[in-house]
Amino acid sequence: MHIKRENISPDNFLFYCSKCGNSQKISLKDLIIKEIPLLLDVDSHKLEQAYKKGNLKFYQNRFITALQFRKSVAKIEAGTMVCFSNEIHIIRGFPKIRRTLMLEKAMELHFQREVAVEEKMNGYNVRIAFINPEIVAFTRGGYVCPYTTRKASEIMDLSKFFYDYPDLVICGEMLGTDNPYVSHYYPEIGKLGFRIFDIREKVTGKPLSIKKKNYLLEKYNLPPVRLFGLYSLPEAPTKILELVKNLGENGREGVVMKDPLMKIPPLKYTSSQAHADELVYAFKFPFDLGKSFFFSRVVREGFQSYEMQESKDEMKKRAQRLGESILYPMVETIKHISADEVAGEDLVMEADNREEAEEFLHHLQELGVVAVLLKYENGRAVIRRIHQSTTDKIKNFLNGGLY
Amino acid sequence: MHIKRENISPDNFLFYCSKCGNSQKISLKDLIIKEIPLLLDVDSHKLEQAYKKGNLKFYQNRFITALQFRKSVAKIEAGTMVCFSNEIHIIRGFPKIRRTLMLEKAMELHFQREVAVEEKMNGYNVRIAFINPEIVAFTRGGYVCPYTTRKASEIMDLSKFFYDYPDLVICGEMLGTDNPYVSHYYPEIGKLGFRIFDIREKVTGKPLSIKKKNYLLEKYNLPPVRLFGLYSLPEAPTKILELVKNLGENGREGVVMKDPLMKIPPLKYTSSQAHADELVYAFKFPFDLGKSFFFSRVVREGFQSYEMQESKDEMKKRAQRLGESILYPMVETIKHISADEVAGEDLVMEADNREEAEEFLHHLQELGVVAVLLKYENGRAVIRRIHQSTTDKIKNFLNGGLY
Repeated sequence: MHIKRENISPDNFLFYCSKCGNSQKISLKDLIIKEIPLLLDVDSHKLEQAYKKGNLKFYQNRFITALQFRKSVAKIEAGTMVCFSNEIHIIRGFPKIRRTLMLEKAMELHFQREVAVEEKMNGYNVRIAFINPEIVAFTRGGYVCPYTTRKASEIMDLSKFFYDYPDLVICGEMLGTDNPYVSHYYPEIGKLGFRIFDIREKVTGKPLSIKKKNYLLEKYNLPPVRLFGLYSLPEAPTKILELVKNLGENGREGVVMKDPLMKIPPLKYTSSQAHADELVYAFKFPFDLGKSFFFSRVVREGFQSYEMQESKDEMKKRAQRLGESILYPMVETIKHISADEVAGEDLVMEADNREEAEEFLHHLQELGVVAVLLKYENGRAVIRRIHQSTTDKIKNFLNGGLY
Repeated sequence: MHIKRENISPDNFLFYCSKCGNSQKISLKDLIIKEIPLLLDVDSHKLEQAYKKGNLKFYQNRFITALQFRKSVAKIEAGTMVCFSNEIHIIRGFPKIRRTLMLEKAMELHFQREVAVEEKMNGYNVRIAFINPEIVAFTRGGYVCPYTTRKASEIMDLSKFFYDYPDLVICGEMLGTDNPYVSHYYPEIGKLGFRIFDIREKVTGKPLSIKKKNYLLEKYNLPPVRLFGLYSLPEAPTKILELVKNLGENGREGVVMKDPLMKIPPLKYTSSQAHADELVYAFKFPFDLGKSFFFSRVVREGFQSYEMQESKDEMKKRAQRLGESILYPMVETIKHISADEVAGEDLVMEADNREEAEEFLHHLQELGVVAVLLKYENGRAVIRRIHQSTTDKIKNFLNGGLY
C-alpha cells in the first residue's frame, strides 16, 4: 500500500495499491483503526482512544505528514512517528534509558558477562531517518526540527548510508555551543557537532549490535560516540566509577552501559559535576523546572557519594558543590529579576538568513516554548527563551507576595 | 440545647433542652445539616458533602466526642473540632501563618504602622481548651493527644484560667527534647516546656490583642513566647533581619510578626539555620517527606541571601550549609539502611507507666504514623517512628533497583 503525500489531510488520504496501481481514498480514522494496529501490533481500540484523548495527534509541516505519539500507547513509546510519505515509515520513539543509583549492584542484576561502555554526552537526542524523499531529524518528542534537519546533513554525509539502508534510523546527540536546545562546550565539538550512539530499525526500533553499528559508522564515515571499552561484568563497576569521576572532573556528563548484542536495555550513570550543572540550570529557573527534577539529581548525589566510599573531605567538597549549584544561580536570577529583567536564556544558532531563524522560532513555539529572536547578524541568530513562571513568581515575591 | 455525652454515638445523640429539660434524640446527620451550620455560619450542604467525602469525620476517644474537620470546609479551617460535651464546644483550627520571602516589601504591604515581633519556636502546635469537664489538648489536625493533654496540666496551672475563661482557647507550642513529635533543645526549656503565643475565642477563633493576651498570661502565671518588642513599620525589617540572624546563630527558628490588635493575620520569617535543620530532617527520610518540603526551604534560602545582601563569603557559607544539610543526612541514612536497619527516629517521652506510653503509641497510629515502643524504663519511654518509604526505596536501590 502506498500513499500520495500531496493529497494528505487529516480527513483525506489517497492510497494506491502497489500491486494493481488502483487508487483509493482512506480516512485517518481507518488508518488508525485498521492499518497502524497491524504495523505496530497494537490494539486498534487503544489507538482510537489515544487519538480521542490527543495522545496520538495528526502532525504536518513542510517535511512530513504523520501521526505523532505524544504519549506512549501500550508498548509504543512516546515520540513514535508514523509518517505518510509514498509509503508508511514508522520511526519508533527513543526508549527512556534507566538510571543506576548503585552501579555495582544494578549492573550485576541487569547485564550478562560483558558490557560496552560508551560516553553519554550532554546535548539533545535526535533521530535521523530517510522519509522519502528527504532525510529528516526528529527531536525526542517526535517533532521534526528544521534546524537539526538542515545541520545534520551539513555536518555528516548521510545520503550514502540512507541509500543503502533506508530502513534504519540514526540515533545520536546534537552537541556544542551553537546548539539552540542544550548548549554545552566540548573541545572536540566546538560550535556544533553530532555523535551517534545507536542505529535502530524502523517500525520495530530494534537496535543493531555494538559491533554492527560501529562497522556501519566506520564504513560510512559517520561519527560515533566514544566507546571506552568492553568490560567483563566483575571488573566493570570499578572501572566505570573511576571513569565517571574523571569525566566529571573534565566537565563531562557520564556513561551509558550496553549489552554488546543490544538484547538488554542500556543503563546510564552520570557524574557529580553533571548533576551540579543540571541543578545550576534548574535553580536559574526554579519555578519552571519541576520539583522532581531537583529531587532526583540530589538523590543521585547521595548514592554516588555512598558508593564511592568518599572520605570526609571528598564529601564536603561534594556537599559544597551541591549547595553552590543550588544557591548561586537562584540568587543570581533574583538579582536579575529585581533589575526588572526577565528570567531567560540566550541560545545561539547558525542560520543562513533571518527566515531560517524564524522558522526555528516557530518550531519552538510549537513545542510550547516562549521565545523571541533577539538578534540576527552574519549568519548567527540569538534566540531568547523566556521562563515565564520564574519571572512572574520571583517578581511577585520581590513585591512582597507571600509564599 | 445540651447534649448528654454518655449516650453519644454516631447515630444517636441525646439532647435535652436547657429551658424545659425535655430530652430529645437527634442524629449526627441532623447535627451536621441543622445545628452546626448555624453555629459556624457555613452552608449545610457543604458540610454534608464534606461528611460524605470524609473531610468531616466523627471522632471519639476517652476525652471527647466530636466532629473533626480533616480538611477545611468553606472558611472553616482544617483541624476545627466540634465537641459534644454537655453542650457544643467549637475549637477552631489554628490558621496557617503565611510566610514572607522578602521581609521588607511584604511587611510594608501587609501591616499598618506597628508590628509586635514574637519568637517562633520549634515544637508542635497545640490548642488547649476546657471541654467540660476536662482540659484537653488538641494537635494541629484536631486530634486529642493524651500525652500533651496530661503534660499541659502538669507544666502549667490551667484550672484557674479556664474557670474564669471557659470560652477561650490557649494556643502555643510544646517544646523540648522529651517531645515525642518535634524534639529540639532549648536551654530555657530542657526536657519539656510550653510557650503560649495566642489566646483565641472558641467558635470564632478570634485572637485577643497582644496586650490583652499578655495581661491574662501574666495574671494567671502562664508562660508566653518571647516578645522581642513593638516596632514601627519603617524600622521593623532591619531589626528583624538582624534578630533572625542572631536567632539562627543560636540554633533558634525565627519570628512571627503580628498586628498588635491582631486584626491582621500574622506573618512568619525564619532563619537559615532553621531551614538547614529542616533539610537535615527531610534528607534523613528523603522518600517520606514531600518534594515540596525540600523545594520551599531551598527557595527561602535564596530570597534570604538576596535580601540580606550577603557578601561572597557569607553566601558561600550559606551554600555550604545548604549542601551539607542535604548530602550528609542522606548518606548517613543510606549507610544505616545498608547495615540492614530501618530509617527511623527515636522519640523520647515521659510516661508514668507503660500503659501511658502505649496509649500515646495508639494515638500516633491513629495519625497514620508507623511507630513501636522501643523501651520503657523509669518513667521514660523511647518510641521509634519508622519511615517506611525511605526504608523500602533505599533498600531497593542498594539492591540494584533502577531509578
